[in-house]
Amino acid sequence: MKAALIIIGNEILSGRTQDKNLSYLANWLNEIGIQLSEVRVIRDEEEVIIETVNYLRKTYDYVFTTGGIGPTHDDITSLSIAKAFNVDLEINDKALSILKEYYKDSELTDARMKMTMIPKGAELVENPVSKAPGFKMENVFVMAGIPSIMQGMLEGARKHLKGGDIIKSVSVDVFTPESNVADELTKLQDKYKNIEIGSYPFTKENRFGTSLVLRSKNEQLLEECKLELLKIVDKFKS
Amino acid sequence: MKAALIIIGNEILSGRTQDKNLSYLANWLNEIGIQLSEVRVIRDEEEVIIETVNYLRKTYDYVFTTGGIGPTHDDITSLSIAKAFNVDLEINDKALSILKEYYKDSELTDARMKMTMIPKGAELVENPVSKAPGFKMENVFVMAGIPSIMQGMLEGARKHLKGGDIIKSVSVDVFTPESNVADELTKLQDKYKNIEIGSYPFTKENRFGTSLVLRSKNEQLLEECKLELLKIVDKFKS
Repeated sequence: MKAALIIIGNEILSGRTQDKNLSYLANWLNEIGIQLSEVRVIRDEEEVIIETVNYLRKTYDYVFTTGGIGPTHDDITSLSIAKAFNVDLEINDKALSILKEYYKDSELTDARMKMTMIPKGAELVENPVSKAPGFKMENVFVMAGIPSIMQGMLEGARKHLKGGDIIKSVSVDVFTPESNVADELTKLQDKYKNIEIGSYPFTKENRFGTSLVLRSKNEQLLEECKLELLKIVDKFKS
Repeated sequence: MKAALIIIGNEILSGRTQDKNLSYLANWLNEIGIQLSEVRVIRDEEEVIIETVNYLRKTYDYVFTTGGIGPTHDDITSLSIAKAFNVDLEINDKALSILKEYYKDSELTDARMKMTMIPKGAELVENPVSKAPGFKMENVFVMAGIPSIMQGMLEGARKHLKGGDIIKSVSVDVFTPESNVADELTKLQDKYKNIEIGSYPFTKENRFGTSLVLRSKNEQLLEECKLELLKIVDKFKS
């Protein structure tokens, strides 16, 4: 099972805001056997949103979007999703009653009413944090951009997701530059074609190091490969 | 002038590593009048890299890539870029002499020699941190994924970039939920069509707040709009 994430927001692309949803979603999906395979960060522009959603929802099992479902003029995700699916954007009775419970009548301004407008045919995704819901339209999950709210909505999305094989990973760190282990890693990768072997350099306390990560759904194979990896790594232990 | 960034790396998509290059690049580009308009995070897969590079380099003035130019088997960016441009990947004499200066002959292993392989016709981009260079192929800048190295390479890329109008921004924070200012913001946006008005909710010390950001290349207009924004915001100051 494969998924894509669309991060919608000029504030991410301008460098103003550091995205925190990508890594959270990736790890959350891993745990239920869904692999995040592509992420796109796009501007708050209707045409771009429509095109991106329509391409990715046909390419992946699931698509998640974050951002642009709030009450302000620059929140255009819900309308764009409605257009992508060629349905109307309309007041959703359930969303309305959720907001009516949260706000006094006098507080239900035009801006807040905007958050009750959901594409026709969509199912709501609960927002335990600030009430205004996200929604699910076929295989597309539309969520808020604020990390705490997005994380709450994910729990509501959980029941709609069918996981696949869970990919296990093993990580081994060694204090040597990755170029020292590269040749032997290549041989190891050639031997274990069903294991994804990643090599990620780091520096710590002014020493060069390498994180070696093995990923596979086959736990036995992973264990076997790990033993061989440890033999390679042992040569560099001081 | 518009640019796209391609973040190449399974470690970002698996959630293992938090990307730090997006916001750095966005801010760095802003300062020279180039707007980061799209970002894609993709897997270390040759076909995906080729397709993504070839699409984006025709769409944007500049494309930057990060990741996958190291010495290990999972570093396939340089080869993929060569294929995207339909040229050979070959030992680059200048890259070779840089590495020969840095490593003893006996240390120039097969793995390190891989970092001298550059697409034919590319210009090197200097790496002040760990020597092995990035490169520029037409409007595509291929850089390392490690933030410190990527940042060093950007300085080397600077001379190849032609900036455009610099977009100025003004930011005003107010302690009120964004739905309270939304209706007036809509009117302000309608009045100032050439200013991008963004509204970003936050929470701080258990209070709801909103960051309002005005962005435009027209400084005078920005100043005018800011005065009107401050009037809106003043109503919520306690």
